[in-house]
Amino acid sequence: MANPSLLILPGDGIGPEVMAQVTRIIDWFGEKRDLAFDVEHDLVGGAAYDKHGTPLHDDTMARALEVDAVLLGAVGGPKYDDLDFSVKPERGLLRLRKEMDLFSNLRPAQCFDALADFSSLKKDIVAGLDIMIVRELTSGVYFGEPRGIFEEGNEHVGINTQRYTESEIERVARSAFELARRRGSKVCSMEKANVMESGILWREVTQRVRDAEYPDIELSHMYADNGAMQLVRAPKQFDVIVTDNLFGDILSDCAAMLTGSLGMLPSASLGAPNADGRPKALYEPVHGSAPDIAGQGKANPIACILSFAMALRYSFDQGDEAARLEKAVEQALADGARTPDLMGPEGGTPITTEEMGDAILKAL
Amino acid sequence: MANPSLLILPGDGIGPEVMAQVTRIIDWFGEKRDLAFDVEHDLVGGAAYDKHGTPLHDDTMARALEVDAVLLGAVGGPKYDDLDFSVKPERGLLRLRKEMDLFSNLRPAQCFDALADFSSLKKDIVAGLDIMIVRELTSGVYFGEPRGIFEEGNEHVGINTQRYTESEIERVARSAFELARRRGSKVCSMEKANVMESGILWREVTQRVRDAEYPDIELSHMYADNGAMQLVRAPKQFDVIVTDNLFGDILSDCAAMLTGSLGMLPSASLGAPNADGRPKALYEPVHGSAPDIAGQGKANPIACILSFAMALRYSFDQGDEAARLEKAVEQALADGARTPDLMGPEGGTPITTEEMGDAILKAL
Ligand SMILES: CC(C)[C@H](C(=O)O)[C@@H](O)C(=O)O
Ligand SMILES: CC(C)[C@H](C(=O)O)[C@@H](O)C(=O)O
Repeated sequence: MANPSLLILPGDGIGPEVMAQVTRIIDWFGEKRDLAFDVEHDLVGGAAYDKHGTPLHDDTMARALEVDAVLLGAVGGPKYDDLDFSVKPERGLLRLRKEMDLFSNLRPAQCFDALADFSSLKKDIVAGLDIMIVRELTSGVYFGEPRGIFEEGNEHVGINTQRYTESEIERVARSAFELARRRGSKVCSMEKANVMESGILWREVTQRVRDAEYPDIELSHMYADNGAMQLVRAPKQFDVIVTDNLFGDILSDCAAMLTGSLGMLPSASLGAPNADGRPKALYEPVHGSAPDIAGQGKANPIACILSFAMALRYSFDQGDEAARLEKAVEQALADGARTPDLMGPEGGTPITTEEMGDAILKAL
Repeated sequence: MANPSLLILPGDGIGPEVMAQVTRIIDWFGEKRDLAFDVEHDLVGGAAYDKHGTPLHDDTMARALEVDAVLLGAVGGPKYDDLDFSVKPERGLLRLRKEMDLFSNLRPAQCFDALADFSSLKKDIVAGLDIMIVRELTSGVYFGEPRGIFEEGNEHVGINTQRYTESEIERVARSAFELARRRGSKVCSMEKANVMESGILWREVTQRVRDAEYPDIELSHMYADNGAMQLVRAPKQFDVIVTDNLFGDILSDCAAMLTGSLGMLPSASLGAPNADGRPKALYEPVHGSAPDIAGQGKANPIACILSFAMALRYSFDQGDEAARLEKAVEQALADGARTPDLMGPEGGTPITTEEMGDAILKAL
């Protein structure tokens, strides 16, 4: 049988550095655990623009649709700030999400014991925190039409359209309920049904799917502004949160920052299952391209490495191997391995991106 | 000369209770400071719906346009959850905002010394925090057309429209820059220009207004998701934040919760100046109607009282009297007056809404 295939898109900023460590981990699984992957590398974002004049080449898009999973580093940077909207680095990522139809974006906000002191929140508020945010990723105001900047009278007007169909809401709701079954059986859905009709539809459809198909799951509804407050006030009240593309963007970043471990947080973006039962999938760290520290060996590769662990679990049904990798990361941390972003007030000497890779390989 | 006029709309939930204390304060200013107001009371939200079948009667709307300032308590509650969208309590508030053209919503996120321990964030992160969020309040996805739930094929689709004209952005940007001049001269503008064209226009216009009219103000731009993160990570980096209606809704609630003093935070919503130079204005606490504690004397009236202080400052040019009232609130807190929401881990006996009113009147 052929090896499963991986397309690696390191992207911009710290993307290539952190991805280099992931590649070492992938090699380790091939050598030591008889779990070899066929790995290809390609460009996305500013890196693709620099070479091809587009943030995602059609050939890369085509390969992304063929492989078993895509691993992405990060896209964007100030160098590309003045590019036209249509060729901004972000468009490459958005095209991948849209054409791979990755409607369900899983963003765990987890507080690592060894790092609970790093949060700007009090330790008792965040210690042991383990939330999963399920963000709709292929619709809403990110993709709705009409959109653009138009002339109207003698001025410009900027327009975007928030737009959700019932079936779009249904499928992401199902994916949240499925996840909740494997966790605490509790889902909180967030929208602004008090001011937006798209939020009313969101609320109705999530409730209907729950009632018809997931009576075992406890579903609650919360306005997104209150959601942001509750995340700050008492995040442990949540198990799974399901929300739309734009609210998910903001709320998941807020939740990620609560943990104090932004450099640690992976994400998975999943589509519908293929013929072989595997969902189309893209894995990427929650952090961005961090251009300010790029190329200096300061980046923390853990979020990207844990994104590969998510790939092992969700794309390759290798839950045990995923757990092995996650344990190794915890072990490395417990042994005191710290990139600069993980340096606490107690001080110490930070290690480099590559040394963090070493520490995790050693723990493996 | 006639007294300045105030329209008081207590609304739903804890609205009437907290407003009762404001009324006592207003009376005090009339008796003791020779600052009498002509005060009218009327209904808004669920209370108006119960009586008139609409969350804002046309007569009330007309009076709101005539008076010098409106004070509002809060709207909404579970009792009204199943009402049709068009008559939900929130529509009353949104109609006031829209027809009074209150485009600039000032939401201070301030951490009171006596209460710094109440935040879920570490004390050093929030102590002394003093941010002003300027939220655009009359446009964007709250009001854009088309909107609604439509049939499409054999399913429903929920649609809302994010829409900003240059002049809408200009005027709220100006109001943020003006405020910044009286504060730290620093404005951070937040949008999602990396994925939304309306955000691109927002960024361009705020920058243009800054360059042409406010070269003394330092303007930076941040994506709203990063904004949420930075608010949690290091909120003191901000002075004034300017953002659109929906982002402002979420980010200001997030910022409010950082302070740990939600029951303390007022807001002002200002429109264009009238002939007499006074802006149309509505003042309301940031907290909501808190139906769970309504009618029990547990609500903290301070946010609503400080909203009246903002009215003194922004509508009646009585900055000294506003400061007097704000000092009295601080004094009451320093003297140990605590409603249940202000009870810390150290315990003690909470006082009632009315007793908090007493304490502040005493301090005055
Ligand atoms: C880079 C950007 C387009 C993206 C988004 O807005 O979705 C990012 O913020 C994210 O959350 O993955
Ligand atoms: C009550 C509701 C309509 C309102 C809003 O969404 O603007 C509230 O959340 C606010 O922030 O004032």
